[in-house]
Amino acid sequence: MTTPKEYKRIVLNERPVGEIEPTTFRTEVLPFDLKPGEGEVLVQVTYLSLDPAMRGYLRDVRSYLPPVQIGEVMRAQGLAVIIEVGPGSTHAVGETVSGTWGMTEYIVVKDGAARKLDIPKGIEALDYLNTLGSSGLTAYFGLKDVAEVKKGDILVVSGAAGSVGVVACQLGKRAGAKVYGIAGSAEKCEWLVKEIGVDGALNYKSPTFREDFKKIGYVDVYFDNVGGDMLDMVLTRLAQNARIALCGAISVYNSTKPAAIHAYTNLIGQRAKMQGFIIFDYAARYPEGIQALSAGLIDGSIKRKFHIIEGGIEQAPASLPLLFSGGNTGKLIVKVSDASKSRL
Amino acid sequence: MTTPKEYKRIVLNERPVGEIEPTTFRTEVLPFDLKPGEGEVLVQVTYLSLDPAMRGYLRDVRSYLPPVQIGEVMRAQGLAVIIEVGPGSTHAVGETVSGTWGMTEYIVVKDGAARKLDIPKGIEALDYLNTLGSSGLTAYFGLKDVAEVKKGDILVVSGAAGSVGVVACQLGKRAGAKVYGIAGSAEKCEWLVKEIGVDGALNYKSPTFREDFKKIGYVDVYFDNVGGDMLDMVLTRLAQNARIALCGAISVYNSTKPAAIHAYTNLIGQRAKMQGFIIFDYAARYPEGIQALSAGLIDGSIKRKFHIIEGGIEQAPASLPLLFSGGNTGKLIVKVSDASKSRL
Repeated sequence: MTTPKEYKRIVLNERPVGEIEPTTFRTEVLPFDLKPGEGEVLVQVTYLSLDPAMRGYLRDVRSYLPPVQIGEVMRAQGLAVIIEVGPGSTHAVGETVSGTWGMTEYIVVKDGAARKLDIPKGIEALDYLNTLGSSGLTAYFGLKDVAEVKKGDILVVSGAAGSVGVVACQLGKRAGAKVYGIAGSAEKCEWLVKEIGVDGALNYKSPTFREDFKKIGYVDVYFDNVGGDMLDMVLTRLAQNARIALCGAISVYNSTKPAAIHAYTNLIGQRAKMQGFIIFDYAARYPEGIQALSAGLIDGSIKRKFHIIEGGIEQAPASLPLLFSGGNTGKLIVKVSDASKSRL
Repeated sequence: MTTPKEYKRIVLNERPVGEIEPTTFRTEVLPFDLKPGEGEVLVQVTYLSLDPAMRGYLRDVRSYLPPVQIGEVMRAQGLAVIIEVGPGSTHAVGETVSGTWGMTEYIVVKDGAARKLDIPKGIEALDYLNTLGSSGLTAYFGLKDVAEVKKGDILVVSGAAGSVGVVACQLGKRAGAKVYGIAGSAEKCEWLVKEIGVDGALNYKSPTFREDFKKIGYVDVYFDNVGGDMLDMVLTRLAQNARIALCGAISVYNSTKPAAIHAYTNLIGQRAKMQGFIIFDYAARYPEGIQALSAGLIDGSIKRKFHIIEGGIEQAPASLPLLFSGGNTGKLIVKVSDASKSRL
């Protein structure tokens, strides 16, 4: 096996106040001295997932995961190939695995932290960073357990062209709901209607957006990825017993002060609920979700799109802001290395 | 039976923009020409309940009940005595009944709109406008079904000295929760601790309120009667899997613009839910609630206090604002007539 003399990783340099800046992260170059010990493996990272939740990890507040500390490697999930196994490891060299590697080119982890991927026909390894990863699972459990979407519901999904949203739209259709996606460009809306099969797509940048929104009727389920003003608007249009699954609030993650919502008293009049959830709480049920989502990928009823950034790990910090500007079209992934070259 | 020549009722004169004004309602005097028809009864109203929800009925917006129209009798629940029965009525003259009479001294209603009260020892008729009426039932179903309060929970009740809040505090204690009540004066707080038995009472007008609030720890259940800034503060102090039962938002009912909440994204991080409810949805289960609450009144474990306004029905409009200024101590009731004098 050929290993390099050095490797790179991305660490948090300073906490951003608002948007992520070029000074938020820095690249560290370290001498390559990685060696797996007992029950450990050395992996070479191939792809890293970029996720809106990353903005939250940079915030020094109480949340579902501890904040990333200054000087620490930025938290990230990814794919990797095992290039060396320690004594007693149950893994094998050459295996494709997924894990929370952080933004690094190489890392030594415990056996259990590297998950060998099952890749049947119709599925590709990258799906495990998207439809079969936290994006798809978030849509699955959010719609099923939190929003309890059912046949005949009017379902609205914000961030509908995003990695979670697009799965939520498709699962909503499969559940028999009438699905409306909200996205930020005419192109994304066209894609949602023509490729993804939503009943309607609304461009929130359109001057007629609010009127268009009223035309869809009262909302039974709102799968919210964006928060802020859009959530406030939806609150004024709830059907009785409406369910709002609060998945994320991408519109406010960069804000120094979160946008206010005013219309929450409609939750009372419409006896509606607004419920936040975190996908990690469903870990014990991931197999159920992966099975359902895999079936959808294999039979073609769940479609997906990737937006892969080439150029190595240094592209990760500069690409992350695309998520907040709406600049990505499809699941945002950074290609860190070429898997085929990693294999022995 | 002696009936008067005229009778009075209170009608909506104009919609208030902010607070209820002397011009919001007007008193109408009508010739007494009331006569029960087939399956109807004529009742003389004895007591009327004044409720925060009334402010909502004055607002011309989509809600769980249609708004009261200009010129219509103001909606109100109350007690009455049956003074005449029409042919085929199953009621009897002299019965004490409850119903949604509106703000009127007399009214003819269908048999089914007058509910004969069961008044065992330990219970008084007025309890049906309070602990055994919508106030107590709201606390019962809100805590049980919406908030799912359980042993060991930290339960915070706002408007704790109000008619709903005080029942919520006591039911919370019975469920084994640690109960903290929020009220607007030192006297109310003292009463909550000494008479009602909460574990702690916090005066939201105290300059140390926010620090006092932090000392109670993270909140598992928030039974919210007030909304607005206090809700926003509680949102920053949620425990994991917290439940917020949105019962009312008395702090914003008079506002031309509802207070904003900013901290709703904590619902995501703490995988918490915020759910509104309307007591009428539980109508089929009222007997269950009334039975449980009656048992508490009879065994003394649920205490109550009334604030009765004397002086007749004209006092109702002027007394209603007490609910929003915190001027009442106990369930606010207007005495419309003397039951004993109504009987034949």
